[in-house]
Amino acid sequence: MQALILAGGTGTRLWPQSRNALPKQLLDLVEGGTMMQATVNRILPIIPIENIFIASNRVYGPLIKEQIPDLPKGNIIEEPSAKHTAPCIGLGAVHMGQADTDQVMASLHADHFIADEEGFRQGLLAAEEVARQGYLVTLGIQPTGPETGYGYVQRGAELGRYNDQLVYEAAGFLEKPDLATAQRFVDEGTYYWNSGIFIWQISTLLEAFQNYMPEFYDQLGQLEQAVKAGQVIDSIWATIRPQSIDVGIMERANKVAIVPVDIGWNDVGSWAAIHAINPTNEHNNVALGAEHIAFETEGTLVQGNGRLIATIGLKDVIIVDSGDAILVCAKDKAQDVKKVVDWLKQNGRTDLL
Amino acid sequence: MQALILAGGTGTRLWPQSRNALPKQLLDLVEGGTMMQATVNRILPIIPIENIFIASNRVYGPLIKEQIPDLPKGNIIEEPSAKHTAPCIGLGAVHMGQADTDQVMASLHADHFIADEEGFRQGLLAAEEVARQGYLVTLGIQPTGPETGYGYVQRGAELGRYNDQLVYEAAGFLEKPDLATAQRFVDEGTYYWNSGIFIWQISTLLEAFQNYMPEFYDQLGQLEQAVKAGQVIDSIWATIRPQSIDVGIMERANKVAIVPVDIGWNDVGSWAAIHAINPTNEHNNVALGAEHIAFETEGTLVQGNGRLIATIGLKDVIIVDSGDAILVCAKDKAQDVKKVVDWLKQNGRTDLL
Repeated sequence: MQALILAGGTGTRLWPQSRNALPKQLLDLVEGGTMMQATVNRILPIIPIENIFIASNRVYGPLIKEQIPDLPKGNIIEEPSAKHTAPCIGLGAVHMGQADTDQVMASLHADHFIADEEGFRQGLLAAEEVARQGYLVTLGIQPTGPETGYGYVQRGAELGRYNDQLVYEAAGFLEKPDLATAQRFVDEGTYYWNSGIFIWQISTLLEAFQNYMPEFYDQLGQLEQAVKAGQVIDSIWATIRPQSIDVGIMERANKVAIVPVDIGWNDVGSWAAIHAINPTNEHNNVALGAEHIAFETEGTLVQGNGRLIATIGLKDVIIVDSGDAILVCAKDKAQDVKKVVDWLKQNGRTDLL
Repeated sequence: MQALILAGGTGTRLWPQSRNALPKQLLDLVEGGTMMQATVNRILPIIPIENIFIASNRVYGPLIKEQIPDLPKGNIIEEPSAKHTAPCIGLGAVHMGQADTDQVMASLHADHFIADEEGFRQGLLAAEEVARQGYLVTLGIQPTGPETGYGYVQRGAELGRYNDQLVYEAAGFLEKPDLATAQRFVDEGTYYWNSGIFIWQISTLLEAFQNYMPEFYDQLGQLEQAVKAGQVIDSIWATIRPQSIDVGIMERANKVAIVPVDIGWNDVGSWAAIHAINPTNEHNNVALGAEHIAFETEGTLVQGNGRLIATIGLKDVIIVDSGDAILVCAKDKAQDVKKVVDWLKQNGRTDLL
């Protein structure tokens, strides 16, 4: 199996720590290195480093090389610009399928957290077996609550057991639901969170591009020729329309399978998630990168920059010191960090973006 | 009239901004300069600069000279060490009464806030007149609520009108009360907050030292000789017992008068006071020294160090960035900043004290 790690995101939901020049996947937000390093280390027991490819915006190339020094030089696939997931995965497939398009490729995100790494690997191995039957496979995450921030996938008929796990046909992909709908999904027990983790044979993926994204499939042919000839792809890339793989293929394709997994997955979409995925002390506090002196403080995350942070009388607060800016935010308002970023954009504060 | 400004405090209640090397009175916490500068500017309309003396710990001398450049060089009275208010005021009296002990001296604190400066000056002028009748005079602050953090003074019989203000004999000084007692004080209407602002003829003060602090009075004689001879006072000073002027004299003396004033006085004893004494915006927020980007934030104080501070979903929170440390504190826990300072002391963190 090969792995393509998507690492082009410019997430701003972890501002002021995440920046255009230093996105979430390259930050040290959990134990065991940066999220990128954790993503690589998580699959190394089943996928050798030479089979791991990282697709990312050109500007992050040097930092990725620094963080993953063992990665072969040719395994960093640089996108000239961000075009969402489908073009990125297509470009990855062109690079990775040159020797053999029957190979199975797992498409992973560089900025997800997974608590049960062995469970994740077993899920991937099951998905690899299903993929060899010609399916587009996704890992469906067992919901732990009526989450409205995730898309869902509904399971259909049983396909059988693979690597000792029950696998289903996918009955449909569903956009982020409202709370009542999410609750119904959880109650019915046949819906999973859409992890955005996909596994397929490269030949299956290319056929899907041909069927469901024919314009892009033609452009992919041009990309392939350029890559083989060692040419610059920028002018071809510029003509490509941004599209997500979910909308472009997964929601439309017929032969889609779900491998359900229950692995403590989190897409780390906000500072509240950083609190949730890290070990807490006896007062449910998390301190990263700073000495935290706490009195009457509970459920609070401190993400520092070396400076001591003292707190008194706080409950469920997020404090982030990035060195050049400070965020103090109620944990249940963590999604609104976007508002600060929008304000900075509108006011031309590129120094803090 | 002469003024002695007491500026030796090492207050830690405004940590992390206030430090041993930079106490509250030398900080820029309100409009119009540092608290020391505001204290001087407040009395300049009625007391010329050559009549203003500042008593302080020796280590603060250079900063005081820098902040009050017009002050005559001989008007800074340096204490070899902190001995509380009575010795400090006594040493001031020795310096200030050399020409004429009939002069009236006002003893003020360098770190108090007063909103109504003209009202304060009119109170001082009334007190000056009363002091010339041989009284030890204090400004009694009209309470605005049942404050348990202040001492109180109770008024006795009317003494008459001075500078168009009703003046009373003092019936007693009372320590910080519990809430029920404080409420009774406010309801009865004959109690005032003890401002620690005293006005007396130097001769009256010296007589009081002789009557109520005879040991110190003898030491004061030695201090006077040393000062007149231009000698170092350190060895005499070392023998003096620390004592407050309240306990040493005011609570014991018979001829004490109260000039009641209602002048927006605040002893700035915590960060909550800094929020209270500064102008607020439409969301009741105060931002000092930092750009504050606020969403759903109310009643919050931001005291910064140049770095942008963004807040989301906060109510009544204090955020202080001193450059080398950050404090985030519920406003109603502002008194507990002391706990952080104690922790730092116990853990040898002199770098942050």
